[in-house]
Amino acid sequence: MSYTLDKRVDGAFHDVVEQTIDALADEDFGILSDIDVQQTFAEKLDEEYRQYRILGACNPPLAKQALDEELQVGALLPCNVVVYETDDGEVGVSAVDAEVMLSVVENDDLDDIAAEVHERFERVLETLPAA
Amino acid sequence: MSYTLDKRVDGAFHDVVEQTIDALADEDFGILSDIDVQQTFAEKLDEEYRQYRILGACNPPLAKQALDEELQVGALLPCNVVVYETDDGEVGVSAVDAEVMLSVVENDDLDDIAAEVHERFERVLETLPAA
Repeated sequence: MSYTLDKRVDGAFHDVVEQTIDALADEDFGILSDIDVQQTFAEKLDEEYRQYRILGACNPPLAKQALDEELQVGALLPCNVVVYETDDGEVGVSAVDAEVMLSVVENDDLDDIAAEVHERFERVLETLPAA
Repeated sequence: MSYTLDKRVDGAFHDVVEQTIDALADEDFGILSDIDVQQTFAEKLDEEYRQYRILGACNPPLAKQALDEELQVGALLPCNVVVYETDDGEVGVSAVDAEVMLSVVENDDLDDIAAEVHERFERVLETLPAA
């Protein structure tokens, strides 16, 4: 079982990043963190790396519900959606599968929240144009 | 099996946040994201919430190794350390247990990296003064 929902997306890298952020907004996810992995590795490792962004997506009502169920679950938040250049020069988008990720928590009260995030991320990927 | 390493820490909330960031730096983890959950919920939900910070900690060489093994693993990065007020007014620190979190990836090549992060986060918690 994969821990991500994946899609190859048609478009230039930065356009796909913007489309992904917009599609997440349509599902009421704001971006609370945005990590540029290429820039980080350039600065910290002095290494060239592919374009790769880690978008930390948060739906505040769902996050609040999850934290009310289990205080430590913030260690697994926000739910990330990554946009990256693939080995063959395409653009890939992978959204963490909240149902798989939250399975490590072993708290059934989180199941409905995880399923809701999963469904919304599936719809986000559906709206992006396939490569 | 818990998915976090946890400790009740002596000190005021903001001091513990600073001590945690310093202890992570000593283990070569930089903070790539810093989410103020209290502020986010105040802005987005108009709700009062306890003080709660999600620190996204990244050791660039280990992150690079992990991404070289598996491109999608960025969806689980950075490794979070959370600092929060507990129900009884103490300050708690919980670091994600990378070995448990990365177990969902089912890629044995990540085991050594996960174990290394686990050990470093254990040392980070050890350096913080117990409540």
